Amino acid sequence: MKIALDAMGGDHAPDVTVGGAAKAISDLSGLEKLYLVGDEATIKAELDKQRVSSLKIEIVHAPTVVTMEDAPTAALRGKKDSSITRATELVKRGEAAALVSAGSTGAAVAASTVLLRNLSGVDRAGIASPIPNEYGTCNIVDAGANPEAKPEHLLHYGVMGAVYARRVFGVENPVVGLMSTGEEDHKGTDFTREVFALLKASNLNFRGNVEGHDLFESRLDVVVCDGFVGNVILKSCEATAKAMFKWVKQEVMASGPLVQIGAKLSKPAFLKVKERGNYETYGGSPLLGVNGICIIGHGSSSSLAVFNAIRVACEAVRHELNPHIEEEIRKLPR
Amino acid sequence: MKIALDAMGGDHAPDVTVGGAAKAISDLSGLEKLYLVGDEATIKAELDKQRVSSLKIEIVHAPTVVTMEDAPTAALRGKKDSSITRATELVKRGEAAALVSAGSTGAAVAASTVLLRNLSGVDRAGIASPIPNEYGTCNIVDAGANPEAKPEHLLHYGVMGAVYARRVFGVENPVVGLMSTGEEDHKGTDFTREVFALLKASNLNFRGNVEGHDLFESRLDVVVCDGFVGNVILKSCEATAKAMFKWVKQEVMASGPLVQIGAKLSKPAFLKVKERGNYETYGGSPLLGVNGICIIGHGSSSSLAVFNAIRVACEAVRHELNPHIEEEIRKLPR
Repeated sequence: MKIALDAMGGDHAPDVTVGGAAKAISDLSGLEKLYLVGDEATIKAELDKQRVSSLKIEIVHAPTVVTMEDAPTAALRGKKDSSITRATELVKRGEAAALVSAGSTGAAVAASTVLLRNLSGVDRAGIASPIPNEYGTCNIVDAGANPEAKPEHLLHYGVMGAVYARRVFGVENPVVGLMSTGEEDHKGTDFTREVFALLKASNLNFRGNVEGHDLFESRLDVVVCDGFVGNVILKSCEATAKAMFKWVKQEVMASGPLVQIGAKLSKPAFLKVKERGNYETYGGSPLLGVNGICIIGHGSSSSLAVFNAIRVACEAVRHELNPHIEEEIRKLPR
Repeated sequence: MKIALDAMGGDHAPDVTVGGAAKAISDLSGLEKLYLVGDEATIKAELDKQRVSSLKIEIVHAPTVVTMEDAPTAALRGKKDSSITRATELVKRGEAAALVSAGSTGAAVAASTVLLRNLSGVDRAGIASPIPNEYGTCNIVDAGANPEAKPEHLLHYGVMGAVYARRVFGVENPVVGLMSTGEEDHKGTDFTREVFALLKASNLNFRGNVEGHDLFESRLDVVVCDGFVGNVILKSCEATAKAMFKWVKQEVMASGPLVQIGAKLSKPAFLKVKERGNYETYGGSPLLGVNGICIIGHGSSSSLAVFNAIRVACEAVRHELNPHIEEEIRKLPR
């Protein structure tokens, strides 16, 4: 299969995108072609620097980049020759089966929804972001594509998230929860109670309202919420984990030699915990619901994270994620 | 001053409420009287068991309790003789200057807003919940009193939170942020953009939109958001911290003897981190905006947490929190 990589997207591009591309070419057997989309001279120089050369890699020139500072939709109109737009066009024309970007999330969402449009029956696309859960992976949908959601959008997130969990994570009968302020059915807002009724009436394996602790310690594959709440949850969880590690370090530094020796000895256990929560190994977040596979990586992605995002893109294509989403959306009562 | 304690509220009442009361009587010099409100025989037995006896303690009989299972407003109508209702009535009649409860948050909010009513000019009360921040304490307002908020309510939360930070935490010119999906002014939803404009036009020290990491690492005293978002953030942060500690423990257990010895040696540093994040030392969350001081404790409060909630109640009364809130609300443009 053929994948388009926004080679200029992300805080550390094109260093990490070329690095991730090289690993993808060598490790992912199903990958026939990887388009590196971006400024040709810059990408060529980086390929030379990292001594990467493969017939499977093809540069597609795009002179501009949409940055985090650009307003996404305006940039889409203004920078028609940007790497994210050109990469998305490859998918639109059927020359690539999927698109991967660690650049501006807003730009990837805008390019995908405008150029690829939504899958049949889907009103709004939603980003599925993974949380490391004791039973596997809990995907939060929507993690920020659509901050002004309607109840029906969240029903679609539940359906699409469940298909994603089943097809890409191999989970049978995925469990879907609704983020709320308490476990009881009546908890939440008028909005969440409307979503609750829709999810309950669907054929999803809906376990009801869930709270923060369920993300980590309950058997839960998909949690639906509007894009504002999803984005805020993810960033708050990430910030808490980061603060905890920082504080442990601070308290160790402020302690006596015995504690410091102890911290050195026990460091391997910490690194394993860091690894469990490491988004690099999760491989990016799919924008579910657009007509084409779009995988969005963390802005500060490393080579490993870019590689894993390409890997997830391949999985989504191989397991025919989108046809299955359309099939399940069709089954919903109209 | 006189304080009313819901002696039957919380998962571990009356054990911890009597324990907290005993410490409050001995440590808080300004406390003239502590009303223990709840079933008289049960409280008496617990006082005897813990050998607590003081002329400053007075039992106010209330035969029923509102539990977490009760729907708050219905319980308020149905259980007119509950400990939370009776405790709130003491404040309403002026016999107590403040009320402290670690019972059902919904019941405390319902009792306070119905019986005490709001301060003059305040539309909706909001709970201020503390987050341990590197510069001090960041208070999230609203942490769940009012899930269906209007933009004006968040402006009031900002004003009330700033007064709370100034009067009770002694912060000069408190910094107020608005929880959103990015730092740029245009980020968020139509709702948050409306709140942004109100906060910007106010005389608050408004630093703009903030994200998860700001809660811990930016100079920030108050973060406003609607009660749904605030509740979800707090629970997600708490759950992340809990998961991290659990995973470290798991990884240590699964490691070799050197790592385990190291973990034992470095444990004091961990305990300090746990202490930094410990709600017990923060002393409960005030319901800002009601005509009377109401401090809400964590449902799983310990004696120390109950003591600190009583301490915060005393501080709020001593520093005339409510008159100052009314004064600042009056200054807002109408």
